[in-house]
Amino acid sequence: MLFSRNSLLQSENEYLYGEMYDLVEKLFPITRSITGNGVRTTLEDIQKRLPSLKVVEVPSGTQAFDWTIPPEWNIREAFIADSSGNRIVDFQDNNLHVIGYSAPVDKEVTLEELKEHLHSIPSQPDAIPFVTSFYERRWGFCVRHNTLTALGPGTYHVYIDADLEPGHLTYGELVFPGETSDEILLSTYVCHPSLANDNLSGPVVTTFLAEWLRGLGNRRYTYRILYIPETIGSIVYLSRNLKKLKKHVVAGFVLTCVGDDRTFSFLPSRRGDTLADRVARCVLNECIDTYDEYAFSERGSDERQYCSPGVDLPVVSIMRSKYGEYPEYHTSDDDLSLVTSAGLGKSYEIHRRCMEILEANRAYRTQQPCEPKLSNRGLYPTLGGKEKTQSIRDLLDVYMYADGAHDLIEIANTLGLSSEKCQSILDILVQEGLIRVAEE
Amino acid sequence: MLFSRNSLLQSENEYLYGEMYDLVEKLFPITRSITGNGVRTTLEDIQKRLPSLKVVEVPSGTQAFDWTIPPEWNIREAFIADSSGNRIVDFQDNNLHVIGYSAPVDKEVTLEELKEHLHSIPSQPDAIPFVTSFYERRWGFCVRHNTLTALGPGTYHVYIDADLEPGHLTYGELVFPGETSDEILLSTYVCHPSLANDNLSGPVVTTFLAEWLRGLGNRRYTYRILYIPETIGSIVYLSRNLKKLKKHVVAGFVLTCVGDDRTFSFLPSRRGDTLADRVARCVLNECIDTYDEYAFSERGSDERQYCSPGVDLPVVSIMRSKYGEYPEYHTSDDDLSLVTSAGLGKSYEIHRRCMEILEANRAYRTQQPCEPKLSNRGLYPTLGGKEKTQSIRDLLDVYMYADGAHDLIEIANTLGLSSEKCQSILDILVQEGLIRVAEE
Amino acid sequence: MLFSRNSLLQSENEYLYGEMYDLVEKLFPITRSITGNGVRTTLEDIQKRLPSLKVVEVPSGTQAFDWTIPPEWNIREAFIADSSGNRIVDFQDNNLHVIGYSAPVDKEVTLEELKEHLHSIPSQPDAIPFVTSFYERRWGFCVRHNTLTALGPGTYHVYIDADLEPGHLTYGELVFPGETSDEILLSTYVCHPSLANDNLSGPVVTTFLAEWLRGLGNRRYTYRILYIPETIGSIVYLSRNLKKLKKHVVAGFVLTCVGDDRTFSFLPSRRGDTLADRVARCVLNECIDTYDEYAFSERGSDERQYCSPGVDLPVVSIMRSKYGEYPEYHTSDDDLSLVTSAGLGKSYEIHRRCMEILEANRAYRTQQPCEPKLSNRGLYPTLGGKEKTQSIRDLLDVYMYADGAHDLIEIANTLGLSSEKCQSILDILVQEGLIRVAEE
Repeated sequence: MLFSRNSLLQSENEYLYGEMYDLVEKLFPITRSITGNGVRTTLEDIQKRLPSLKVVEVPSGTQAFDWTIPPEWNIREAFIADSSGNRIVDFQDNNLHVIGYSAPVDKEVTLEELKEHLHSIPSQPDAIPFVTSFYERRWGFCVRHNTLTALGPGTYHVYIDADLEPGHLTYGELVFPGETSDEILLSTYVCHPSLANDNLSGPVVTTFLAEWLRGLGNRRYTYRILYIPETIGSIVYLSRNLKKLKKHVVAGFVLTCVGDDRTFSFLPSRRGDTLADRVARCVLNECIDTYDEYAFSERGSDERQYCSPGVDLPVVSIMRSKYGEYPEYHTSDDDLSLVTSAGLGKSYEIHRRCMEILEANRAYRTQQPCEPKLSNRGLYPTLGGKEKTQSIRDLLDVYMYADGAHDLIEIANTLGLSSEKCQSILDILVQEGLIRVAEE
Repeated sequence: MLFSRNSLLQSENEYLYGEMYDLVEKLFPITRSITGNGVRTTLEDIQKRLPSLKVVEVPSGTQAFDWTIPPEWNIREAFIADSSGNRIVDFQDNNLHVIGYSAPVDKEVTLEELKEHLHSIPSQPDAIPFVTSFYERRWGFCVRHNTLTALGPGTYHVYIDADLEPGHLTYGELVFPGETSDEILLSTYVCHPSLANDNLSGPVVTTFLAEWLRGLGNRRYTYRILYIPETIGSIVYLSRNLKKLKKHVVAGFVLTCVGDDRTFSFLPSRRGDTLADRVARCVLNECIDTYDEYAFSERGSDERQYCSPGVDLPVVSIMRSKYGEYPEYHTSDDDLSLVTSAGLGKSYEIHRRCMEILEANRAYRTQQPCEPKLSNRGLYPTLGGKEKTQSIRDLLDVYMYADGAHDLIEIANTLGLSSEKCQSILDILVQEGLIRVAEE
Repeated sequence: MLFSRNSLLQSENEYLYGEMYDLVEKLFPITRSITGNGVRTTLEDIQKRLPSLKVVEVPSGTQAFDWTIPPEWNIREAFIADSSGNRIVDFQDNNLHVIGYSAPVDKEVTLEELKEHLHSIPSQPDAIPFVTSFYERRWGFCVRHNTLTALGPGTYHVYIDADLEPGHLTYGELVFPGETSDEILLSTYVCHPSLANDNLSGPVVTTFLAEWLRGLGNRRYTYRILYIPETIGSIVYLSRNLKKLKKHVVAGFVLTCVGDDRTFSFLPSRRGDTLADRVARCVLNECIDTYDEYAFSERGSDERQYCSPGVDLPVVSIMRSKYGEYPEYHTSDDDLSLVTSAGLGKSYEIHRRCMEILEANRAYRTQQPCEPKLSNRGLYPTLGGKEKTQSIRDLLDVYMYADGAHDLIEIANTLGLSSEKCQSILDILVQEGLIRVAEE
């Protein structure tokens, strides 16, 4: 069960990582939004790997704290055609072409009127922006700036065949019970259309973590895994489960932007020193050379809700390129070429390692005063001389902090040893009857 | 009521600052000491602006902790005349010429004997030093070193017409009640003769702050404003009011050396992290480019008493050029040319800003879990895109710290926002019913 | 009773330091080990200076936590002779030549077999290493590497006349009672053969400290002084005295490697901020220019037991060249030429100063609010002017921290004054009735 760091550094899991990439690829074409059939299709695909994933539907109009679930949005077809009937912009080509939650439209418009409904990025003229309007009814298209500037005068046919009707908000929930009711929360979102790093990397890595967790023989913690629409989804979920989560969650992770192969990013919780923060920093420091740590004020996903006052869960986010910080963010350039199997794989390993450490993270107490007699146990070179081996020193160093106050993460920190090394020493000391898990 | 920082940076209050300078100028010629008519005249002048200022007289010989109020000192005339009757040194020219609390004298002395009673500063030969002898009876003159070295041999007539008789120690006290009995203390001293930065700047800025406080519509705090002789005055005041002050004072300021136009100085309280320290550092960091922070061991005014063990009030001192640190200190060069209306004015603004923040400094609690739905309240752009405006981020950032634990100063600190910005956001959030003042 | 820092810097105690060196020299030839007559002879020599030293014998086979006292070891003669009967290696020349706790042997061996029982240091070919095998029965010799490489083929006579029989572990204990049952612990070890810095310097400096403590008129603390074999000795002692020590010891010092004249070294306690740590750092900062501070993980002597979880005493170690860190460590080069009277003397002074400060280290409370009127007590220049003397500032600064919360060490730290200066000021303030020791 113990994670082998070498396996992380080497590529023995390349097959697994390739499967992750394949799942991103499979889910990529689906038109998702915060409600609608795209979410359902996505969750169905995930259920193929995780049959116990429960899909929950909450009706439009339901109140959740300060928010109300909006109508359900489903889109079938959309285009802009010129006066000759040529489709200049077509939803079939890229589902980013239509504003998320766009109202239906079917009319002739002048170029001038059309332009009021077009969104583009002048500084990235070949990219289609991702734009939404969940809470105000409007229609619109997103286009390459080069397309926009090439439009000649004349009339255009704008056509969006979409429903904005009472329906449901759909989310997925999965719970793997553990020995205790204390919980680790994994939360990811499934509400972006054809965008790869933000956000398909999130549900895909989460799904493979869930498969690994399902296979864990004896989980200490209960794991709660959420596939929700961002913002409204976490708010709706919290409105129905707040008391339970506040009582049980000891650490949580929002999985987003975990697919590219660039520098890791860390967004701490609001408190900044929770168990989630501690384990994340421990793993990042041990397993990668460098990462960017952001301030909590640079948050941007569901930790906005999980860490809000009144909720105040210990939730952090470990990302690769952070949302808002990479040029492809929220554009059509965030596509299958940005995400790599290596990028997904290392994110998976980092998160898995966090959970391995959490499972193992305990404080211990020595069973007697003074140092143990290691030679009684075949642990000590019997010939004392000028040198003691480093491994004996490490063993006695770890023993010294079996004082009931230092947990695994803290011992590793204090001694500058890897958590893996510390854990293997603690295991030996427990086997030898020299230390015991401290009562909590 | 909210302080506008622009108004501080601009000079729209120049008229007010000019009035402050005029009051310094008016009070400058009066011969003050720790007792006597100079204090009374000064307080009468202040009463013209603050009629509710109460003047208290405490008899000589009264015991105050380890101290006893000395006799009252009043001086009428003093000079040194040479054998031809020419007045070489004349109290009429500058009241620094006579040692504070000098005993009377009227006799012929040799140059040698005279020199034993003369004080000068060889390194500043054109400046008259300020010297006192409150607790040991002696007579003496303070002279320019150039005057001293020019004295020829011969006999001199020394004449000091002064009383050292049982009388009173005089101080002024003003209380503006607020909604709570919690108090802000402003303390300044009125015991120096014709010296401008140390000390007339202190009572003058204090007087204008008192006028501003009097005009405040609904004061949260009670304000206690003291015009006392330094050291013996604060000791006497504490000996009569200790229990009350220990119970009520939440922050206090000793106003001294607030008149020149050089770098600000900050002297923290003994504890160093009281509410007074926090608000002072907040304002200094926000409103000026740079300032010198001193150690508490470099204290020198009435915070010596207010912060002493057994008293232990949260009292700090925000100064311009700190006593003891500028060349003109305690010499005749600390005159009307050293103090400027701009120097007085900015000191006034800084202290006023401290009190504005103290009035507003509260912790808040959100009224519901999760982020508010800003668009419901017209606070949010309805079209979500790649960019959110900074003002929305600021609003949600401030909201995140409405957790009952962070007060205004702490929120501003944590977020790196100005206290003014934070306060305006907190006001909006309160108006919207999203947060509420936390019970204390 | 107050320590004069000048006396430390000057060499007025040279006679005393010379006596220390003489005692090292006298004890040097004795063959000590963790048990046996060498320990007894050493303790007898120390008893000549400290007749109240109690010698305790604990039988072989006694259990002490995880450990068992091994058989007693005594050696009479040992050599390696070549086929001509020439003694190539002789225990009479240097008692390091035989492995500590070597089993007896008397046989002819080939060069090949001999080499399996020889220990040398190739990188220090002229030094004999110090090697022991306390808990596994084996025989062996330690030789200069040059001797080893010069050995020709042939047979050799190896002869070790030693007993490994049930006997006793011997240690010395000395208690000087004080006004309180709170204890200062001094622990040193007496188990190394002819090795000077590690370890004879330890018991010798300890002995002279004990003589000084014996002469102290009114000890505040009880002093417990231990001369034990390293590791097994502290474990045995703790197994018989743990409850008492846990209850009473407020600070402790392991004295080892205190004899050479190189840079001081400091090994903190496991907690790192105990009274022992605080006083040690205070003295090291005040009395020497520079020292090396090690991490607790670099521990190596009896603090391994004293600071272990379940024991957790506040014990530190102030050394000169730290064990394991100097080239002569655990070799025959750690001889009488490495240790100097100046090296021993300064170690003595540093430890003595620690105890002087501990004796004096109290928190105080002022007896009245506000500053005292110093001139009433002849402590203040009566003529107030531009300058106050630094000594008056120091006195008032110290007074400011007589708040019941700052002890002598903390006051010295906060003010950047020497502990000696602080203590002399506190003495004056107590004499004047201005402050009083705070109830603990």
